[in-house]
Amino acid sequence: MARVVVDVMLKPDILDPQGEAVKGALPNLGVEGVERVRIGKRIELDFAEGVDAASVEEQARKVADALLANPVIEDFTIASVEADAPAGAS
Amino acid sequence: MARVVVDVMLKPDILDPQGEAVKGALPNLGVEGVERVRIGKRIELDFAEGVDAASVEEQARKVADALLANPVIEDFTIASVEADAPAGAS
Repeated sequence: MARVVVDVMLKPDILDPQGEAVKGALPNLGVEGVERVRIGKRIELDFAEGVDAASVEEQARKVADALLANPVIEDFTIASVEADAPAGAS
Repeated sequence: MARVVVDVMLKPDILDPQGEAVKGALPNLGVEGVERVRIGKRIELDFAEGVDAASVEEQARKVADALLANPVIEDFTIASVEADAPAGAS
């Protein structure tokens, strides 16, 4: 099985209210020194055995363009990763 | 500046309705061979210069435990990354 991770983040010049909210809460946790917090989406796509590597990233890009990222305010990156750990395991 | 990325995903045995919705839409895009889609959060924490590396990951873990992940249904991973690219750039 081939796993591709699509990371979708707001473009740098777009305000991130969620990130600002988390940043504002950090002093209450005693966490110092954080200049900036940005929050985005991580999507794991697991492809069946036998789907060839080149087409896996191409198809993932197609999905990201069409469904996962809003090109007006978001950027995305695509990376093939080891899929030994079950999805979501830390 | 040191950047730490916290990836928060649902535990493997938790149903992911968002992921199922994306998976269901893939055939309409002509995308074949995707067995599983999981959607989670990616949080970038940018620490100021001078904050020492050991405490950066420790503080990021503290933030993830307290604010970013629900330990009942979510797992998280923490990774220090290069921060040359501006936050969110692909």
